[in-house]
Amino acid sequence: MRGLLIVISGASGTGKGTVCKKLLDDLPQVAYSISATTRAPRPGEVDGKEYYFLSRDEFNAWIADEKFLEFAEVYGNFYGTPLNKIDERLNRGEDILLEIDVQGALNVKRKCPDGIYIFLLPPSLDELKRRIEGRGTESPESLQRRLSNAVAEIKVGLEYNYVVVNDSVDNAADQIKAILIAERCKVERNRDKFL
Amino acid sequence: MRGLLIVISGASGTGKGTVCKKLLDDLPQVAYSISATTRAPRPGEVDGKEYYFLSRDEFNAWIADEKFLEFAEVYGNFYGTPLNKIDERLNRGEDILLEIDVQGALNVKRKCPDGIYIFLLPPSLDELKRRIEGRGTESPESLQRRLSNAVAEIKVGLEYNYVVVNDSVDNAADQIKAILIAERCKVERNRDKFL
Repeated sequence: MRGLLIVISGASGTGKGTVCKKLLDDLPQVAYSISATTRAPRPGEVDGKEYYFLSRDEFNAWIADEKFLEFAEVYGNFYGTPLNKIDERLNRGEDILLEIDVQGALNVKRKCPDGIYIFLLPPSLDELKRRIEGRGTESPESLQRRLSNAVAEIKVGLEYNYVVVNDSVDNAADQIKAILIAERCKVERNRDKFL
Repeated sequence: MRGLLIVISGASGTGKGTVCKKLLDDLPQVAYSISATTRAPRPGEVDGKEYYFLSRDEFNAWIADEKFLEFAEVYGNFYGTPLNKIDERLNRGEDILLEIDVQGALNVKRKCPDGIYIFLLPPSLDELKRRIEGRGTESPESLQRRLSNAVAEIKVGLEYNYVVVNDSVDNAADQIKAILIAERCKVERNRDKFL
């Protein structure tokens, strides 16, 4: 079976990093995708382990050749998720975990619709919702802005496949593990079992 | 959240009944759907518990009113899965498990596309496949017939959502439990979480 491309995303503050670390600790068969970057290696960092270290020209060439699933500039350095490495590894049957910001994940989804897109929600969204809907002491402008932000979040989250409320790292990781088992049972991933 | 309609099916000999019993034992929140029948109650059987006991005229009226998800005649008695009771219970948030034969399940799928359709495979299908594909000592006609039967099975199974190989009751039940957790995380079942 082709490996699973697991994309975990969510607004900042939802604890993506902690949940991903727990999953990688618990699931040795799942590998973390190594990014490419134009920043210089720090002492001890090895090309192809922590990152693929590229010159700015090499990075630009990768962009031009559409070798990235997604890329972004952060504090003057470029970071990208290489497409070809992921495809190779998925075809070898490896499961690959990507932790990407909300918009980056949707860019990946357009290129890799067979990935599993999991949207982490903070446990406090219900509380936020009640605050927005409830009798507000806020100004109408402030209330409107907060509602708009929440609606933007809706629109993004609804394009994912799954939503997991990160009320605790263990609960969230358990639900994601169940999602991975279920995805492996999907008929479209098991056509070979039907001859 | 609306309850899950869980439909477990598979060719005879795949152990559907045993897997369903295990699930009902382990998951107290999942209820088994009570069928309607025209056969007479046996001593101790209670209307609305083991079955909904209907006269033949009542049963025909339910058919005419499209009250059945599916129905079939077995040894001169009619058995059917009532549609309205299931819908009521799903709307109350109950999860409902149906164990139905292969064709009956696909009839249900046409009426209830939001159900979860799980196809159980016997562990020996790979072996069967190898036997069919392998150097045969069977006559070409016999080989062709077996291949046709297998292809018919493919076509039916591919219309389901999930496939679970029943290599052991515990493994199969665990995979189905994971499928239920994953289904509850699907974005389309959690639109209320996005405001």
